[in-house]
Amino acid sequence: MPQASPLMFIQPQLSDTQEVPILPMSSLNEYLENNRDRFESDLSDWLRIPSVSADSSFSSNVKQAAHWLQSHLEDMGMTAELIETAGHPLIYAESPPVPGKPVVLVYGHYDVQPPDPLEEWTTPPFEPTIRDGNIYARGATDDKGQLLTHVKSARAWIESAGELPLQVKYLIEGEEEVGSPNLENYLSTHQHKLACDCVVVSDTSQFARGVPAITFGLRGIAYYELRLSGPKQDLHSGIFGGGVTNPANILARLLAALIDENGRIQIPGFYDDVIPLTDREREQFQALPFNEAQFISNLGVNGLSGESSYSTLERRWARPSCDVHGLWSGYQGEGTKTILPAQAGAKFSFRLVPDQDPASIGAGLREFFESRLPPGIEMELIDFNGTSGILVSLESPYIGAAARAIEQGFGCPPVFIREGGSIPIVSTFMRELGADVLLLGWGLNDDNAHSPNEKFSLADFHRGIRASAYLWQELARIEL
Amino acid sequence: MPQASPLMFIQPQLSDTQEVPILPMSSLNEYLENNRDRFESDLSDWLRIPSVSADSSFSSNVKQAAHWLQSHLEDMGMTAELIETAGHPLIYAESPPVPGKPVVLVYGHYDVQPPDPLEEWTTPPFEPTIRDGNIYARGATDDKGQLLTHVKSARAWIESAGELPLQVKYLIEGEEEVGSPNLENYLSTHQHKLACDCVVVSDTSQFARGVPAITFGLRGIAYYELRLSGPKQDLHSGIFGGGVTNPANILARLLAALIDENGRIQIPGFYDDVIPLTDREREQFQALPFNEAQFISNLGVNGLSGESSYSTLERRWARPSCDVHGLWSGYQGEGTKTILPAQAGAKFSFRLVPDQDPASIGAGLREFFESRLPPGIEMELIDFNGTSGILVSLESPYIGAAARAIEQGFGCPPVFIREGGSIPIVSTFMRELGADVLLLGWGLNDDNAHSPNEKFSLADFHRGIRASAYLWQELARIEL
Repeated sequence: MPQASPLMFIQPQLSDTQEVPILPMSSLNEYLENNRDRFESDLSDWLRIPSVSADSSFSSNVKQAAHWLQSHLEDMGMTAELIETAGHPLIYAESPPVPGKPVVLVYGHYDVQPPDPLEEWTTPPFEPTIRDGNIYARGATDDKGQLLTHVKSARAWIESAGELPLQVKYLIEGEEEVGSPNLENYLSTHQHKLACDCVVVSDTSQFARGVPAITFGLRGIAYYELRLSGPKQDLHSGIFGGGVTNPANILARLLAALIDENGRIQIPGFYDDVIPLTDREREQFQALPFNEAQFISNLGVNGLSGESSYSTLERRWARPSCDVHGLWSGYQGEGTKTILPAQAGAKFSFRLVPDQDPASIGAGLREFFESRLPPGIEMELIDFNGTSGILVSLESPYIGAAARAIEQGFGCPPVFIREGGSIPIVSTFMRELGADVLLLGWGLNDDNAHSPNEKFSLADFHRGIRASAYLWQELARIEL
Repeated sequence: MPQASPLMFIQPQLSDTQEVPILPMSSLNEYLENNRDRFESDLSDWLRIPSVSADSSFSSNVKQAAHWLQSHLEDMGMTAELIETAGHPLIYAESPPVPGKPVVLVYGHYDVQPPDPLEEWTTPPFEPTIRDGNIYARGATDDKGQLLTHVKSARAWIESAGELPLQVKYLIEGEEEVGSPNLENYLSTHQHKLACDCVVVSDTSQFARGVPAITFGLRGIAYYELRLSGPKQDLHSGIFGGGVTNPANILARLLAALIDENGRIQIPGFYDDVIPLTDREREQFQALPFNEAQFISNLGVNGLSGESSYSTLERRWARPSCDVHGLWSGYQGEGTKTILPAQAGAKFSFRLVPDQDPASIGAGLREFFESRLPPGIEMELIDFNGTSGILVSLESPYIGAAARAIEQGFGCPPVFIREGGSIPIVSTFMRELGADVLLLGWGLNDDNAHSPNEKFSLADFHRGIRASAYLWQELARIEL
């Protein structure tokens, strides 16, 4: 009897004819072994370019990193163009079409987070250094290292088999770390050029060391700032307290009203469009090697709480939530000050799951607050643009193809997870291109993305290249 | 039929024998008229001394202001001593005992608030200037000007009638504006020296221009800081939100739980010791010339709210309340940051009314919060020392005496009000000396105490002196 594995839930619809170039595993492994040093050296070269998109003093370096990638793709025989935007350029490249086969679009980014605080880096952020099997540099995992696996895998095909078994397109941006301000417009005006059957993104993580993962769902987000105004200036709380409505009191009341004691969000209709967790998903999550006691201990807390009747992973990945991110009002200094503050504010958001719509949530929220506003308080509710969550069916053939490729690349089958965070641009890809998205994370959660000493395991770099090479083959086997 | 007046509620118990020196009104008025310029000049001299207690660079000036008062009292023939403390000195003076007559203790302070921001003063804060019948200077109303009325009234008796009709003691401090850190200890160790039948304090206000007031109640206060800690560092709200307890969410929940939708505080037993408003008090408040529409308009709000079934003045003066003074958590900058903050905090207080006890309230509060604390949150509740409220019976003979004196001094009867604020030292006087307190405000609410352009009406200064002079006579008529 087979051991229960996440793969047992996948029902791939494979083509029996398999009229695609086949790259024998022995040949691929040999090629990859022979090119280890060269690939690592290329990664190092790219990481050395400080492509910090948020800081305009680095803008020539950002462009340099774009050119590096363009040249690299052209050197593989692809057509590669540098597309200017209002900000940093996009790189677009494609291999020749392969009729009858799926088209895959790789998305990634060549820009990196600022490296501060510099003094916390063991070795400088833009002097890539190998220690203990990891390469340390800003961008090592996020996203140059992970992205490069999908470039090197194509090179492996081209240099080993002469061609790719399907068309691969690349759309690589230089503004992911600053919110991709120019990408959505490009996507919506170039749908034909970018047309594809699935989008591959490696900007997430493995579930744990040695447990590669396919992320089949992301939460969306609807982010708000609530500003309450009371009297035109701070008042003496002795003279006025009890007589005049206090915006800080009301802020607490409104925020508290959002969530009941069972962790359920109280806006009418909030859960109407939530796709319930399936039994399969719940079983998958239950089977994951998630050590809750360790999780609690790592956080330094004495316990967890949240929506009742759901496990911790379910609450983090697949259920909507509401978190206050910031609060402010009145006197925050030492000691006492007896004011009735003129203003109070909060930033908070809902994490959303498919098919919740940020706009509907916002409308419900506004009504919820307005109906609870006492005399003496004026409210301003700022609605930052939200993002829908995404969910790829576990039954998708692309998921099946990716699972088999990962098993070949990493030597073990992936687990199927969702992520609680949001990647707004992924929702945009799904919406604009109508394609499934494969979120294939090669990195680790402790790779220090956005922190000092960012790293990427070189073993995972090479496993990622191998998995990606097999992915092209597995995807090419899907009957359209 | 007499017009309804606050005085109709007073049932003074007067001595029929009236064996006290009588100062004929004609004689007093003549004396006061002849000394107007001299008294104003003395006030000006005192105001010129920048006795800012909070700023150590002014400490020699603070001592200078103390010496000024000491000399002034000695010059009236009183014994006056300067008493060193760990901070700024106290001035104590007394007139000779008058056997069989009440003893009155005048409390006030010769220190002033810092004058900042200097650029907002029309004329410099320590160059007293008369404009439109007001004297402008830091300390004009708070408290040099008001306090001096009770010194000048004694001088009027001594210089007109040769002696005071009862013993007047003065205890004047130089640290009121920094929280009277050394006064309580002095009071509790000098009860015999300070023994008196009533304490007179003029550090409050008239109810309105031309509406002198006796303040017969003050609220107390119980002030807290609540600090909640969750995870050991801020977390990504996408990755952890819904799974990990958010201290900012819980802060809102705990604060909101304190007050129900009817404005009632929810701590069990909170109202047990509240002395209910009497029908008389409610009628008094109802009869006051309080223009609620104007009050609302001045505050710049669109309405008021608070505990249901109580008027605005009742809620401000005679009912307990709960106000959040400060809130902080997480990200308070521009735009969005998606963190689950590690910590959240609030400062808040309850205004208390007799006979609520701050210590009992604090114990109930701690239990209230602890019973509502979910897993994952640790709580620190800092209890700043509280103060009980005070309430002097409207039936007190001292209240009656003061009312008659004010009617003679101001030409109209006073109204009887309570104040929502707390004057901690007044509670201490009542407790340590077992004496009723007369809070007789000559100032106006718009005198800019603690603000630029502090002022005091010279007409009220002279009316205050006249009222005070009659107060000594009216108090002396009370049968002990």
